Parts: sequence; structure tokens; C-alpha cells
Amino acid sequence: MTIIDGKKVSAELKSAIRDEVIRRNSLGLKQPHLAAILVGNDGGSETYVAAKVKDCEEVGYISTLIRFPDTIQETELLAAVDQLNMDPSVDGFIVQLPLPRHINENNIIEAIDPSKDVDGFHPVNIGKMALGLSSYLPATPSGILQLIEYYKIETSGRHCVIIGRSNIVGTPLAILLSRKSSPGNCTVTLCHSQTKGLKEICLQADILIAALGKPAFLTGDMVKQGAVIIDVGTTRVPSATTKSGFRLSGDVNFDEAAPKCSFITPVPGGVGPMTRIVLLQNTLKAAGDKKQ
Amino acid sequence: MTIIDGKKVSAELKSAIRDEVIRRNSLGLKQPHLAAILVGNDGGSETYVAAKVKDCEEVGYISTLIRFPDTIQETELLAAVDQLNMDPSVDGFIVQLPLPRHINENNIIEAIDPSKDVDGFHPVNIGKMALGLSSYLPATPSGILQLIEYYKIETSGRHCVIIGRSNIVGTPLAILLSRKSSPGNCTVTLCHSQTKGLKEICLQADILIAALGKPAFLTGDMVKQGAVIIDVGTTRVPSATTKSGFRLSGDVNFDEAAPKCSFITPVPGGVGPMTRIVLLQNTLKAAGDKKQ
Repeated sequence: MTIIDGKKVSAELKSAIRDEVIRRNSLGLKQPHLAAILVGNDGGSETYVAAKVKDCEEVGYISTLIRFPDTIQETELLAAVDQLNMDPSVDGFIVQLPLPRHINENNIIEAIDPSKDVDGFHPVNIGKMALGLSSYLPATPSGILQLIEYYKIETSGRHCVIIGRSNIVGTPLAILLSRKSSPGNCTVTLCHSQTKGLKEICLQADILIAALGKPAFLTGDMVKQGAVIIDVGTTRVPSATTKSGFRLSGDVNFDEAAPKCSFITPVPGGVGPMTRIVLLQNTLKAAGDKKQ
Repeated sequence: MTIIDGKKVSAELKSAIRDEVIRRNSLGLKQPHLAAILVGNDGGSETYVAAKVKDCEEVGYISTLIRFPDTIQETELLAAVDQLNMDPSVDGFIVQLPLPRHINENNIIEAIDPSKDVDGFHPVNIGKMALGLSSYLPATPSGILQLIEYYKIETSGRHCVIIGRSNIVGTPLAILLSRKSSPGNCTVTLCHSQTKGLKEICLQADILIAALGKPAFLTGDMVKQGAVIIDVGTTRVPSATTKSGFRLSGDVNFDEAAPKCSFITPVPGGVGPMTRIVLLQNTLKAAGDKKQ
């Protein structure tokens, strides 16, 4: 059994990005510039955006953080998006979700210029992904594909069972893994809250991806001997043994599942660290071969 | 066992569209207008486009057929697309595929204004479909959903196995049937040429959709007792008993499969007649509440 080390892989990929930025500078190419819009003071969002800004600094990108109070009106936010769309110095940008309830998230996402949509949430990018065309892939699915590639896990012809059909993880993963590509060419079964006989379906999986957000949901008796397990869950659960009083729990009961697996991602340190790398990769792609 | 009568359902839906056009006229709303671009003289394409024009006439739409020789350059075709994009009298239009090899189909499809893309092939429409947002659905998947609805076939929690992952049938159907919607909420398994153990997977299917284009591929031993079978195949095969010398064959061995089914679509007369209706429905949607 191999534990997939997302921390190590992401560190290597990050280092490669840093080298690429140095190379770009030496060639007179534009320094990649990522902007982030943060609305309100949600604790989780603050943490995520701060991490993204820090990542940019570490690889040598320019980053811009634009903050608005949670009282901002949709029209004002749309104007801010439009300004970033038109700013040639900004290669890519994100609007950190969730947004306050009075703002329609779809309207905001659809207002982003698809060529700057480094989160890969715009319908054009989702559609291109489904059609197998070049696009910005969403962070978690792309990070998982890269882990699979790094560990040379065979996917072609294998049965992949995905639990969870969210727009940003389960559904795009199902599309990507069933495509004629590598990684890809899986027979994919997409399961969700309405699925019946889940255990029997999971027991058929060569590759099992848990992305439903229920701590330790996937138990050992749902795992076929030799399966690959990708755990996307990251739920905060109370803990008596950590200083903060909580720990991150995956969707997989690791202790039960791990002995049966060929490969498994831990939580934390598996899929999580990869998602931040994808944002950097997408921003690099957005910068393309623009000159300084 | 019930034979799903696509001819009957499509005739009813067509009649409802005709009534709606009369109602629109009486309210001073715009007469729907579908345009079609046909490049070259491919026999199949000629037949399909002629049928679409005839459908328009029958329901009271305006139709415009724009023909180009197969020597047309991509830039000229893009200019023609742009003209239709800007023509306020045209509500929706299609570019009949396939196009000659020297033209990049993706470039043409992406040039179509998504709000006039009544084929539902533009990445924006595919992406919106994946995100559960309002869009133009592609003809075959939408036609199948409507047959399922018409016959009140339960989909929620049922296992749907789809054979074939094309961009216009299998992949969008997998997305649509796994969504939280009705019809929908299926556990979907998407199979294709690389799938191993296909028979065992098919035997689990409550709903089995064959869309791979191989005549009589799905045999009786692959069908679970009581399954619903949707046959998307329409391949011309030689026939000694028809005047034309050929007949249409589905992907399902009907005689073997039918006795085991609860519902089954015949070929011809099942899914096929529905696809033309969807184009009319999408054009009606495109016309919206525009005044004359």
C-alpha cells in the first residue's frame, strides 16, 4: 500500500513553477499576475485567499487582493469583475466563494472573462472540458488527475466510482475520467445521495473517489482489495488532541480502508495541497507568452 | 412490456408547438425563425436539413436555408455565422455537421452566439447544462428525457448504464441523468470502447441506453429482467426486404431484449422522431417573448 503524498508532489510542482517564472523573467516574458476578490469577512474565505496570496509570493507572481464589505451590491461587484476583465496587467482572477446571499453567484461567475477564469468555474470552461477542448480545469479535479499521473496509476479500462456529484468536484471528475485521454478512459459510475446499493457499487471500484463531505463515511467493507482511494473530504471535526480543538477529517475511514488499498490519499496532505497548485498553474497558462 | 412510441409522442409535441405558434401570432409575438447553414452536398446532411425545413413549415415557423459549396473557406463561413448572429429576424440557427475537413468545426461552433445555438453544441450551453443552469439542450439527450417523462418512467435512485461517450449523446446524457432533477437523480455508469466487463455492468442496469452505433450490439443476455431500454443507434444496414435496399438498425437486438424489458424504444420510431422536435422546441425558446 502506497500513501499518496500530495504535500511532496505539490512542493515539486510549485518548485517547477518558481523555476518557470525565473525562466520567463530572463526571456522578458510577463510576470504572472493573479487577482482575487474577497467579499466580507468569512473566516474560511480569509484563510483560503491569504494562502493563495502567499503562494503567489512564493513562486514570484504578482498578486492583488481586492476586498469589499459584505454589503456590496451585485452591480458594484459586476463592475469590479469587469474592471479586472479589462485590465491587461491581470492575467487571471478569482472571486472567492461563497458570496453573500443577496448576490447571485452565477451572474458573477458568468461575468468573468473565460480567458481569465483561472478557477475554471465559467460555463465556457466547463463546457470545453466536457468537449475535450483546452480550458482551465477546476482545481480539485485537476489536482487529482495530476496525483494519478504522478503515481503512474493506470486508469484506462478501470472502473472508477465517484461518490458526490458537486459542480466543482464529482461531476467534472466524472467527465474528465471517462474521456478518451490519459489519465482517463475509465468506466465511471457517479453516485450521490439518491444512489441505492452504494456498498455493492463501491465494491466494484478499481478507483474510488469520495467527495461527499461526510467524515469517515467510506468504511473498510466498501473497499475492494487492491483499490485506489482518493479522499476529497476535508471536514473540520472536534478533536481533543489538537491545540485548535479540531482536526480535518476525510470522507474515508482511513484505518479501515488503507490496509485494503494499493494507493490511498491521506487527509490532510493528500488532495488538499494540490488544489492550490492548480490555481498557480492556471494563472501561468493565462499569462501565456505575453511580453513584459 | 411497453414499446415507447416516439412517433406518437413527437406528433403530440409537434401539434402543441403548432398551437403555440398560433397563440403567439394572435398575441402579436414574433413568428419563430430558424436558419440552417448547409455546406456541400452530403446526402445525409441534405436529408436532415430538408426534414428540418419541412418541420418548420408544418409548425408555422419561418425557415431560411443558406447553402455554400464545400470549397468555402473557414473565414467565409465564420462571416456567415456572424451575419446570422447579428440578424434580429433570426431567432436560432444551426450549422449542419459534418463540415468539410479543411474547416475546424469547433471554431464554427464557438462562433455561434450561444443565445441562438439551438443545437446546444456551444461550450457555453454544454457548460450551463453541466451546472444545471438554463440552456439549449442537445437534441438526442433532450428527446430521451422527454420520452422518459412522457411514459412516467421512474429515474430517481435507479441505476442507468449508458454505452457510448459521444459529445452529443452519451456524455451529455450522463450529466443530465445524474443531476438532482426530474428526470434525473440516477446513479449513472458511462461505458465505452475501453470498458471491461460490459455485460456484468449492463446486467445491473435499471435503465440501459445504447448509443455506440453498432447494429444489434446489445444482446438479450446483457439485459436485466424489467429493465428500460433506450436505443439511440440508427445505422443503415443492407436489407433484402426494403425497396431502398437498406434498413435502419438500432444498437439493440430488439427481438432478444424486448421480452425482458419493462419499456423499450424501437428503431425506427423511438428516439429518432424526438430529435427533430427538440430543435423546434429550442427555436421556440429562442424566440421567447419577442414582439413581431
